[in-house]
Amino acid sequence: MQWYFVASLLTLLTSSQGILTTLSQSNGSYTYDYATVPFLAEIFKLLVSTFFLWKECKSSSPPKITTEWRTVWLYPIPSMIYLIHNNVQFATLTYVDPSTYQIMGNLKIVTTGILFRLFLRRKLSNLQWMAIVLLAVGTTTSQVKGCGEASCDSLFSAPIQGYMLGLLSACLSALAGVYTEYLMKKNNDSLYWQNVQLYTFGAIFNMARLLLDDFRVGFEKGPWWQRLLNGYSTTTWMVVLNLGSTGLLVSWLMKYADNIVKVYSTSMAMLLTMVLSVFLFNFKPTVQLFLGIVICMISLHMYFAPVRMLVDLPTTKTPTDALNEVVVGRAGES
Amino acid sequence: MQWYFVASLLTLLTSSQGILTTLSQSNGSYTYDYATVPFLAEIFKLLVSTFFLWKECKSSSPPKITTEWRTVWLYPIPSMIYLIHNNVQFATLTYVDPSTYQIMGNLKIVTTGILFRLFLRRKLSNLQWMAIVLLAVGTTTSQVKGCGEASCDSLFSAPIQGYMLGLLSACLSALAGVYTEYLMKKNNDSLYWQNVQLYTFGAIFNMARLLLDDFRVGFEKGPWWQRLLNGYSTTTWMVVLNLGSTGLLVSWLMKYADNIVKVYSTSMAMLLTMVLSVFLFNFKPTVQLFLGIVICMISLHMYFAPVRMLVDLPTTKTPTDALNEVVVGRAGES
Repeated sequence: MQWYFVASLLTLLTSSQGILTTLSQSNGSYTYDYATVPFLAEIFKLLVSTFFLWKECKSSSPPKITTEWRTVWLYPIPSMIYLIHNNVQFATLTYVDPSTYQIMGNLKIVTTGILFRLFLRRKLSNLQWMAIVLLAVGTTTSQVKGCGEASCDSLFSAPIQGYMLGLLSACLSALAGVYTEYLMKKNNDSLYWQNVQLYTFGAIFNMARLLLDDFRVGFEKGPWWQRLLNGYSTTTWMVVLNLGSTGLLVSWLMKYADNIVKVYSTSMAMLLTMVLSVFLFNFKPTVQLFLGIVICMISLHMYFAPVRMLVDLPTTKTPTDALNEVVVGRAGES
Repeated sequence: MQWYFVASLLTLLTSSQGILTTLSQSNGSYTYDYATVPFLAEIFKLLVSTFFLWKECKSSSPPKITTEWRTVWLYPIPSMIYLIHNNVQFATLTYVDPSTYQIMGNLKIVTTGILFRLFLRRKLSNLQWMAIVLLAVGTTTSQVKGCGEASCDSLFSAPIQGYMLGLLSACLSALAGVYTEYLMKKNNDSLYWQNVQLYTFGAIFNMARLLLDDFRVGFEKGPWWQRLLNGYSTTTWMVVLNLGSTGLLVSWLMKYADNIVKVYSTSMAMLLTMVLSVFLFNFKPTVQLFLGIVICMISLHMYFAPVRMLVDLPTTKTPTDALNEVVVGRAGES
């Protein structure tokens, strides 16, 4: 399977995620407990991965499986980072308004590039660095509030703590991605076995989070497992399946492609959601959305296109050509 | 003189042009007739060029001067194009609002690139094309009206004629630039001699325009020469000298650099003016201004940086290295 096929599929599914979530609401509010969705998505991913692992085990060439404790204990770490990240996100939102928060979210594109370079020691050309910065600039441009939109005076008027937490949030998000890539590429274990470990811990952490939320409100809505599927519609189930599928695609990309591919996929998905919203929800298209799309397309091309497509490489003679010339020259001399 | 020095100077002077013009107003209106400024600037450029031409003629190596009619008659053409352009601009503004007009103005960056390729047959790499589009996108981004700003509902709600005229205006502006470059590089005549021809026709056309304006209003303000310097302050004279100087620098760039350099200079000047306005006129800085600056800086780097600074070129062995290896190999064989 080619990585760009998986990346395109991830873009499509991620952009439909936002739209399905909006469609799953009735009159602008959720009839179900949204916190149960990620838990069920983890269960879905776990089931799918277990099924494929079982099929692999039955096949003529059984998968490579490492069950040593010193490898397994690395798998809950992404879930832990995400848990910390969620809390930092929550804290950030107490300081900054949602518009500033959304715009700061684009920082994670740049922090992913930096951690990708520092931790995974992947070298990027200057052009690729510029492309990454442009991707962040492009997504931000598309989100700039146009005139006539409400609540914009507060943009970037938050206390310094808000920005610090936003930066921390961007770093944690990047760290989780980069760490997962490290984990998936660390050994050549079966992707499905790695997934089973990842999602088992994912499910446990999600369960813990639901329980913690219940404790916080003193179980006034009852324990989470009693209201797990309350108010679930077909659309809600589609949200679950969609979230689960995007998770599986991200795992695949982490093993066979990299974080930068994932960042491009999800950024393009964000733009696609905005374009689709123009048609589906009658959003007013803005100049900045158009500009953002152009910027991100150029960025995509800059990052992934082969160098010879971008610049006219100096047409240096190949060593063989030069040699022939010299040989001919020498023949003339003698 | 290095072209980037001239280009930087052009950026500084062009950006001070906007600021000086604002400072030359009192209570937001002109105490003088603004239409007289370009005329006096032409006279200034003509005097400076004549002086330098005279100095060149006195020097030991007299300048190359072509006085054939079939060369001279090419020099009024830029003035004619600008005259048509002015009228098209005027017609455009009857269809579109000033914000849309300003945003459409950035189209001339792209049309300059296209005419530069078509008429001057200059080849640009894909990366340079992307840089040119990004420059236009960057300047447009910086001009996107933020929320809270008035009169923005009308953006891009003009009739189709407005956009057609805007496109025509962008093409004419690009054509004038590209044609001037063609003219300046056509032969190796002295730059000052070329300037003298260009500005003589420039002064004549400006004079004709002033006279035409007088006819339009039935000489109710008197003929233009009687009110030429009415209400001129020191700042007004600085506006004249500034406009003249930028014109001289553009001529230099047309002969020794090219239109793309000029387009970058003036685009950067536009951004610099906006940044200076934040400090001088208490303009509120916007996110989109910051984004626009980042985009234009990346574009500048993409266009002008040497390829080896942008990408890691395949480290092909130099012909000499390859030859040495082969020679050594052959020595071993024998």
